Amino acid sequence: MVSGTKIESGVGPIRYGMVGGGQGAFIGAVHRIAARMDGEFQLVAGALSSDPQRAKASAAEIGLDPERSYGSYAEMAKAEAKRPDGIEAVAIVTPNNVHFPAAKAFLEAGIHVICDKPLTATLAEAKKLAALVEKTGKVFVLTHNYTAYPMVRQAREMVQKGQLGDIRIVQAEYPQDWLTEDLAATGQKQASWRSDPKQSGAGGATGDIGTHAYNLARFVSGLELDSLSADLDAFVPGRKLDDNANVMLRFKGGAKGMIWASQVAPGHENGLKLRVYGTKGGIEWVQADPNYLWFTPFGQPKQLLTRAGAGAGPAAARVSRVPSGHPEGYLEGFANIYAEAARAIRAARKKNGKPAKDVIFPTVQDGVEGVAFVEACVRSSKKNAAWMKL
Amino acid sequence: MVSGTKIESGVGPIRYGMVGGGQGAFIGAVHRIAARMDGEFQLVAGALSSDPQRAKASAAEIGLDPERSYGSYAEMAKAEAKRPDGIEAVAIVTPNNVHFPAAKAFLEAGIHVICDKPLTATLAEAKKLAALVEKTGKVFVLTHNYTAYPMVRQAREMVQKGQLGDIRIVQAEYPQDWLTEDLAATGQKQASWRSDPKQSGAGGATGDIGTHAYNLARFVSGLELDSLSADLDAFVPGRKLDDNANVMLRFKGGAKGMIWASQVAPGHENGLKLRVYGTKGGIEWVQADPNYLWFTPFGQPKQLLTRAGAGAGPAAARVSRVPSGHPEGYLEGFANIYAEAARAIRAARKKNGKPAKDVIFPTVQDGVEGVAFVEACVRSSKKNAAWMKL
Amino acid sequence: MVSGTKIESGVGPIRYGMVGGGQGAFIGAVHRIAARMDGEFQLVAGALSSDPQRAKASAAEIGLDPERSYGSYAEMAKAEAKRPDGIEAVAIVTPNNVHFPAAKAFLEAGIHVICDKPLTATLAEAKKLAALVEKTGKVFVLTHNYTAYPMVRQAREMVQKGQLGDIRIVQAEYPQDWLTEDLAATGQKQASWRSDPKQSGAGGATGDIGTHAYNLARFVSGLELDSLSADLDAFVPGRKLDDNANVMLRFKGGAKGMIWASQVAPGHENGLKLRVYGTKGGIEWVQADPNYLWFTPFGQPKQLLTRAGAGAGPAAARVSRVPSGHPEGYLEGFANIYAEAARAIRAARKKNGKPAKDVIFPTVQDGVEGVAFVEACVRSSKKNAAWMKL
Amino acid sequence: MVSGTKIESGVGPIRYGMVGGGQGAFIGAVHRIAARMDGEFQLVAGALSSDPQRAKASAAEIGLDPERSYGSYAEMAKAEAKRPDGIEAVAIVTPNNVHFPAAKAFLEAGIHVICDKPLTATLAEAKKLAALVEKTGKVFVLTHNYTAYPMVRQAREMVQKGQLGDIRIVQAEYPQDWLTEDLAATGQKQASWRSDPKQSGAGGATGDIGTHAYNLARFVSGLELDSLSADLDAFVPGRKLDDNANVMLRFKGGAKGMIWASQVAPGHENGLKLRVYGTKGGIEWVQADPNYLWFTPFGQPKQLLTRAGAGAGPAAARVSRVPSGHPEGYLEGFANIYAEAARAIRAARKKNGKPAKDVIFPTVQDGVEGVAFVEACVRSSKKNAAWMKL
Repeated sequence: MVSGTKIESGVGPIRYGMVGGGQGAFIGAVHRIAARMDGEFQLVAGALSSDPQRAKASAAEIGLDPERSYGSYAEMAKAEAKRPDGIEAVAIVTPNNVHFPAAKAFLEAGIHVICDKPLTATLAEAKKLAALVEKTGKVFVLTHNYTAYPMVRQAREMVQKGQLGDIRIVQAEYPQDWLTEDLAATGQKQASWRSDPKQSGAGGATGDIGTHAYNLARFVSGLELDSLSADLDAFVPGRKLDDNANVMLRFKGGAKGMIWASQVAPGHENGLKLRVYGTKGGIEWVQADPNYLWFTPFGQPKQLLTRAGAGAGPAAARVSRVPSGHPEGYLEGFANIYAEAARAIRAARKKNGKPAKDVIFPTVQDGVEGVAFVEACVRSSKKNAAWMKL
Repeated sequence: MVSGTKIESGVGPIRYGMVGGGQGAFIGAVHRIAARMDGEFQLVAGALSSDPQRAKASAAEIGLDPERSYGSYAEMAKAEAKRPDGIEAVAIVTPNNVHFPAAKAFLEAGIHVICDKPLTATLAEAKKLAALVEKTGKVFVLTHNYTAYPMVRQAREMVQKGQLGDIRIVQAEYPQDWLTEDLAATGQKQASWRSDPKQSGAGGATGDIGTHAYNLARFVSGLELDSLSADLDAFVPGRKLDDNANVMLRFKGGAKGMIWASQVAPGHENGLKLRVYGTKGGIEWVQADPNYLWFTPFGQPKQLLTRAGAGAGPAAARVSRVPSGHPEGYLEGFANIYAEAARAIRAARKKNGKPAKDVIFPTVQDGVEGVAFVEACVRSSKKNAAWMKL
Repeated sequence: MVSGTKIESGVGPIRYGMVGGGQGAFIGAVHRIAARMDGEFQLVAGALSSDPQRAKASAAEIGLDPERSYGSYAEMAKAEAKRPDGIEAVAIVTPNNVHFPAAKAFLEAGIHVICDKPLTATLAEAKKLAALVEKTGKVFVLTHNYTAYPMVRQAREMVQKGQLGDIRIVQAEYPQDWLTEDLAATGQKQASWRSDPKQSGAGGATGDIGTHAYNLARFVSGLELDSLSADLDAFVPGRKLDDNANVMLRFKGGAKGMIWASQVAPGHENGLKLRVYGTKGGIEWVQADPNYLWFTPFGQPKQLLTRAGAGAGPAAARVSRVPSGHPEGYLEGFANIYAEAARAIRAARKKNGKPAKDVIFPTVQDGVEGVAFVEACVRSSKKNAAWMKL
Repeated sequence: MVSGTKIESGVGPIRYGMVGGGQGAFIGAVHRIAARMDGEFQLVAGALSSDPQRAKASAAEIGLDPERSYGSYAEMAKAEAKRPDGIEAVAIVTPNNVHFPAAKAFLEAGIHVICDKPLTATLAEAKKLAALVEKTGKVFVLTHNYTAYPMVRQAREMVQKGQLGDIRIVQAEYPQDWLTEDLAATGQKQASWRSDPKQSGAGGATGDIGTHAYNLARFVSGLELDSLSADLDAFVPGRKLDDNANVMLRFKGGAKGMIWASQVAPGHENGLKLRVYGTKGGIEWVQADPNYLWFTPFGQPKQLLTRAGAGAGPAAARVSRVPSGHPEGYLEGFANIYAEAARAIRAARKKNGKPAKDVIFPTVQDGVEGVAFVEACVRSSKKNAAWMKL
């Protein structure tokens, strides 16, 4: 039995609203489940779609008070800020290009923001947003949800404790296959906006999944990037953004790495995988089987660590809900981000309040770095894979 | 992308209460998360512990209204039945011996029951409870949660569609290792009541996990048991109930099977596994990796079907929340039971209302059969593994 | 790098002959490769088929001197015994019913015997053969080849060293699918004799593969059987011998076990698997992936030991040829039996010569026990799975 | 049952000699087993070590006629060419720098050559050797043994038949961990020569294992390289040759790929892995588990093809020895190269004789390309990973 995440709160849930996430969306529903799982949040307002008809229908479908179903995020920010029972936080789950203006509106209205990745469609926006977060002092959580899987936390803890020695090599990959054919041409909503530079920004696979792989590599290894060399392709004829990215990494201090992100690799549903190797050992984690972490101390037998099992330490236990052998999944990992957000938001209620030291979540700075990663990949690829700093 | 379970309801959550599940419990918290996940239930009352002090503290910890934190299930059933905003359903998550009297109290008070397994501590009680459910017409859901994993539903659908041909062989196993040593002697709460015949009933491993394996085998194969031969052991000195069960099965119609349930098998955290073989093909499902189902059509390559992937049909899609490659886990499977319960309870609001045909959950009859399985195992083992009918 | 099996000999290969193994046979070719692999044996004579035409053609095909291609084992035993360059050993790879008379002929001619399993078609013959081996003092090696895989030797060594503590549970299974349909009806040679009681003996799957599973369980665990309870079926209409066997085991000293052997389980090519659990740990080995051994010391992380890897000890190293990560397979395991046979035969050249202590191979006594296992299964099954001693 | 490789020959084995492979060597013993496995070769001569003492002892150990144990390859080539029973072929298994002069000596003496990889220590030598092979018309077989695994042949056949559509992506990796620390400093023979530029050539990991990965990628995909960009490291202080290589590939026609080769990645024993993705499907093969090939036809369930199983075609069956479920390994794959060599050598006995079309083995041209790959990697890495043609 694990001590586990404090999964329920006697102090009343945090009221929050949602921008995006209407009918036909994928990630909005994920956010809502994640927010509900630990009883820490209650959804009370929404601007669920930029299409008023769909916004209304979506609100009804999930039981939102019609009065608090807004036609736009701007309207919602303004109205909720005025209500005595207004939202304390907002989740932004729109296409990338809306992240910046929506986040800006809520931050300026004094509302904490939980925002989907990548942070923004351009690096310029990302930097402005970071400045605004700094200025307003509001909590800003970026949902790089994979960092909140217990065995990812375990991996990071092991690196920090020196169990791998000095890190030499980082191999991250994120292959998928759902864009193997021209799905956007069929009108599929998820594919369409992701292939549209106006909505997505400069990166295709690099932005949608490459940023996850990069963020995860950084999170676990603790290494900082020096420069990268990227070779991007759009294999599907007519596709405007990259669907395959080969990237070589040079970290400060001399470690090296590679990232492969692809959306045209048949056989991979959502194949995020991270491997880190040091002078004393190596680890491997695979998102599709997230309760396991392979660990080989050099010269000793390979170990299969399990979430909440014998080899898992406090960092994993802290974000686990059920005993080992009872698999946790994607939604629990995502919910861990919301649980951390709740801790940060509750702490922020006090003047100069800070969350406890072990509260970890991806910040606006991680978001800036992610967009910089995308833009560096695009720049490098255009210059024949020349090395680029972020 | 999957059509998915309808995960949110615009019609307001179902108010429910909980019996058991206070501090130090495991399964109570699981029920609460499962109930919350789809927004279909709201916990408003509880008799969380038979120890008043612990009941109070537990209620405070999870934010229950102190007024609706009761000292006993009897008091709670009575009080809630009178309230205009009283609970519509109760979740019973106590040691086995309390299931019967608690369920009786709520059913008689006109409250639907969601009850942990095994149904009761004795077969006599189980039969009385079944009669009572019949008489009151209330919804009764037994949380054999493993039947609600999407790929278990998939497996059942494939059997029903004849993709395996005529079933010949069923192999079920459920090894764990947490009772390898005398954990009860340390005072560990979970181990203590499970090893106590007064609280558990006649079965140890047979009752705690053997019933899951048996129920799962029946659920997927659709076969009915003719008789069984069981060889039970309590390997740990001083243990009063079985911790290892070897069972041979004979099904009506000629199929054969085996069940191995053990709590003293080092290396197994929660190793529930089911394999079914017929004249046309075979399948294999492993609880620890629940998003996969191995399927071999005889004479063709082995296939790895994935939840929400290319080979998964409507029965799996109906209870899936996120796309393939985004692993769902134990809590989602458990939540599917609650989602089915919600459908049944909403349907029951109408006179003679019945849930839709595709709503599936383990019933009180499954529970009777489970307790009969346990008692048949114990009887058989005492008679040198003689064949016993249930 | 491993020290490895002494894989080549400067002292000249052992001359041997073969009975059976002509065209259309499977296991004869396996024996020949195994004999060749380490350069310890040279095939110089054969009675490759009871059909003279096929015997001749088979001999030509493998380059045997026509003069030493015999029409019968009797003729071969007689003739080779007289030659100054006659064979020193014979490999018997016929259907089961020929094992006894052929082995008898060669033992009486003073020739060492390497014999395929099961030992004989009946227990009576098996006992006679054991007596004859005793009397003649010749080397007799039974090719329960699975015992010679390095990681099986590793498993046995770990049990002997007490790394699992006191053994409580043994789970062995050997599912295949090649007899799911009535292959014998098509005239397929392998299926035909195996389904014929006159050639196979009393057991079908029990004899062909159940004996392997039983022998392996005994070899690794070191436990002796007290009694068994078996439920056998011939699922394919018209089949005369069992194709599915469910068996419960009681070992002397109180350990318990199960064996499942099946040839009608679609999805299993050759699924031999052994699991052993004790008070201190558990292990799992799967024949299809033979270079791995899972080991869980109770309360510690699960380890994946690899052949010639960090956790493998001397017993495994002794029978390994290549470094870890370079997979060895079925033929290497089989060749290890031949390598042990060579050591025993060379030792036997000296008066009262005995092989070194670490030379291990299945003996005629193992063979007697295997046939006793088959007959006990058949007897038990006929008596409604009553417990039977061997 | 598989039709299988013709595993024995009635026409007498091919006499061969060996250069290198004395005591302390690894790959020499592998070659000898591979040569013996199918009975097609007989070792009759050797220059097993450049150290006369070790050469003599090694020859005695493996039972070589002392008269045909030579002090140098030069002497051996000369002497054997004169003997009426002289060797027809030679296996060269020395450090890389000896490949060229030794191969030259034997080719010029009219003896066929089977040579370990990489072909030579320099590209200049490689080209000279290719010219010499052309001029002499002798058979030259390079032991890129991984190309002879049955499921690698299967993969290649599937690509050729169009089952993957147009190839877009190739991902090859070959991580090991045995050089994580400075093994050469301990005097370990295998590590020492591999880290010595004089004996190895310009490449460390690139030459030792990168060439395997590159050759395998080319063999299966059928693609030709346009250019590469490489970032090499020697992570272990003082090491003179690369121990980690990150390489990006651009193939002619637009496909892209990556190779990662490392000898400092703890947890990997011999982790060669190949993945190929096209417009219609993807495949994955892992050397440590060589009897499996994952295949996903886009939009259909993932299939696990097995050697000699339902989905395996003629190219795999041709080089299989035992039925599916009976794992073949590294030595069988290596032996397949020798079996192909035997076919080529027998064909070459006839004037203008050519082996049958389905006889496939790595040639001297593959060897030239391999050395070109190594030198291009080194050149690229020195120029900040600039793109290089081979």
